[in-house]
Amino acid sequence: MRTLERDRLEAFSDGVLAVIITIMVLELKVPHAGTLAALKPMIPTLLAYALSFTFVGIYWNNHHHLLRAAGGIDGTVMWANLHLLFWLSFIPFVTSWVGTHLTDPIPMSVYGFDLLMSAVAFSLLASSLVRANGPDSLLARQSGLDAKQIASVVAYVAAIAGAFVATWISAVVYFAVALMWLVPDRRLESAIVESQKGR
Amino acid sequence: MRTLERDRLEAFSDGVLAVIITIMVLELKVPHAGTLAALKPMIPTLLAYALSFTFVGIYWNNHHHLLRAAGGIDGTVMWANLHLLFWLSFIPFVTSWVGTHLTDPIPMSVYGFDLLMSAVAFSLLASSLVRANGPDSLLARQSGLDAKQIASVVAYVAAIAGAFVATWISAVVYFAVALMWLVPDRRLESAIVESQKGR
Amino acid sequence: MRTLERDRLEAFSDGVLAVIITIMVLELKVPHAGTLAALKPMIPTLLAYALSFTFVGIYWNNHHHLLRAAGGIDGTVMWANLHLLFWLSFIPFVTSWVGTHLTDPIPMSVYGFDLLMSAVAFSLLASSLVRANGPDSLLARQSGLDAKQIASVVAYVAAIAGAFVATWISAVVYFAVALMWLVPDRRLESAIVESQKGR
Amino acid sequence: MRTLERDRLEAFSDGVLAVIITIMVLELKVPHAGTLAALKPMIPTLLAYALSFTFVGIYWNNHHHLLRAAGGIDGTVMWANLHLLFWLSFIPFVTSWVGTHLTDPIPMSVYGFDLLMSAVAFSLLASSLVRANGPDSLLARQSGLDAKQIASVVAYVAAIAGAFVATWISAVVYFAVALMWLVPDRRLESAIVESQKGR
Repeated sequence: MRTLERDRLEAFSDGVLAVIITIMVLELKVPHAGTLAALKPMIPTLLAYALSFTFVGIYWNNHHHLLRAAGGIDGTVMWANLHLLFWLSFIPFVTSWVGTHLTDPIPMSVYGFDLLMSAVAFSLLASSLVRANGPDSLLARQSGLDAKQIASVVAYVAAIAGAFVATWISAVVYFAVALMWLVPDRRLESAIVESQKGR
Repeated sequence: MRTLERDRLEAFSDGVLAVIITIMVLELKVPHAGTLAALKPMIPTLLAYALSFTFVGIYWNNHHHLLRAAGGIDGTVMWANLHLLFWLSFIPFVTSWVGTHLTDPIPMSVYGFDLLMSAVAFSLLASSLVRANGPDSLLARQSGLDAKQIASVVAYVAAIAGAFVATWISAVVYFAVALMWLVPDRRLESAIVESQKGR
Repeated sequence: MRTLERDRLEAFSDGVLAVIITIMVLELKVPHAGTLAALKPMIPTLLAYALSFTFVGIYWNNHHHLLRAAGGIDGTVMWANLHLLFWLSFIPFVTSWVGTHLTDPIPMSVYGFDLLMSAVAFSLLASSLVRANGPDSLLARQSGLDAKQIASVVAYVAAIAGAFVATWISAVVYFAVALMWLVPDRRLESAIVESQKGR
Repeated sequence: MRTLERDRLEAFSDGVLAVIITIMVLELKVPHAGTLAALKPMIPTLLAYALSFTFVGIYWNNHHHLLRAAGGIDGTVMWANLHLLFWLSFIPFVTSWVGTHLTDPIPMSVYGFDLLMSAVAFSLLASSLVRANGPDSLLARQSGLDAKQIASVVAYVAAIAGAFVATWISAVVYFAVALMWLVPDRRLESAIVESQKGR
């Protein structure tokens, strides 16, 4: 039963993440001419698209590992999960805004704010899963804020502020955070491996 | 067999709900300037987005609990389910309309009308599931219109009318209904728990 | 193995049908005023939307019953299925065109042409499934063109031609065909029931 | 465990591919008149749509066969899969661009470039699956670059260059490659059949 509930939560989340990652392309306005010159002003938008695609991919990956490590879910987990999807659902919007106003500090800051709220929502989801599975669960023993999560939050706050100095600072920070996350969360992976051994 | 049918009904509904909850963001027009001033006129739209996101989330959650409590489905259930999805599919449209015409009574009323029809469709789906599972099923014994469903319908009717007095009245009512539903349906949850015990 | 393949074919088809049925709402342009008068010119579009929503729902329902009755799938079935999804994918496009040009014969005809091609594609999919499952399979014994399928094709051809006399003729025909199909295919349902008995 | 991971990877990929194949239709602008003359300038766009629909279908089909032949997945496979989805996600964008600028070499070349990068990404995904399953796995023994994959890459490079001579050369090449791929990959199919026998 509990596994079935988790499966449907995963399926719904996968559906939402699949739509988020794909509809971003609808924000790419097709150039009005068939020339390379018409494509050139789109380069910031294309880079923002690639970055956001990576971030949604990272969240899908981490979400997948987190849920896999968790045993059961309850009502609080469901709402914590929707709260995460809420902030992720703004990524197409902020991506399009930052891509078309690359040198304005506000869109660059708002982009970081959305990433920050998504990171907070992910931590809340992890906490709700620990509560649902009890303090002795594998997840509880392995979880908790780790260095990567803390580094991300610090980086987002720095990027939100840094955008008012120069927007390229924030852009560099976002790309650096994405790179750091491309490595999957070893702690959760090892928790799964151990849980497999125990069966 | 029956479980497989229910699984595909759930999968299709999850797919539709995932698209509904996500494409709403496409209705958010990206501001034409990179300033906070350009974002300010979007605040009503963003609040309407957050509210509608919550309502679709509530429907996903309640749909999930209802189907989980039900054993089998038949042709009538399939059409009752599509009827519910039909009214829910208008949420991106009415959200965008109400967000851009916040002080006009008609969009605010039409928003409530869509929520009302969705609530009616949800009740019809519940009834069709009870019929498909027989009067002695767990679902039949636990189901029926409850206080929260009646309160919602009364609130929607009040909000549809109240919009012609002042649109903020309706807005407050919609937020209040959403808050009331954030608590999951305990009756259905307990039905599932009992059904698990019986196995 | 065969069941796993069918499951993924169903999952992909459900995904495509869920997106088709939902993105149609994006073709509904939000009225530029918050009045009933601004909503009135949208009535044809809204009716076309409701009709197309019903048709996609019918296809989902029939697709579900057809695949459920079938045992295995092969490469030809995969392409026959994609061919069906191809014609169904045009429904949002033709719906929007017919809704905004209600009295022009061409959009009304093209709408019927898309329904005709979808019906042909559904028959081809059914044939490919019969071939994949052998002449002695339950599907083969129960399948074949039935009265409802033949009536639909005749009706679509009549509506394609009738649009050039008066577009309301075609509109009436499309609604009549949709009504006829709201009743699920009893032959396939009984094949499934028999197949269950045999196990 | 490993199979569950593969299932979720398949489900997410199916979701993304279902959205890609379906949202392309949103790029088809509804004609402003209800006449055949208004539809005529859309013919290149419609042909580009049909071609891209076929390519996404081919990728879904081959992806399905590749994953089916593979036993387990790891973190590298997840990112190789997202990398493939990244290039495929541009198909709606390049389709729309090439459809509206049929005689310009740049969009026709960029279309081929996206197909080329998708083909490279598919090969990288296949390699990562072989690495994850070991050199003695069925996949490893059957996989490796085959004639069809090499022919496709050569054809894409020729079409990217050929567009600067005449765009119809590239268009013919793309249709020829699509035709070649409509036949499913027999090697992987036979690997699956053998793997079934061995169980």
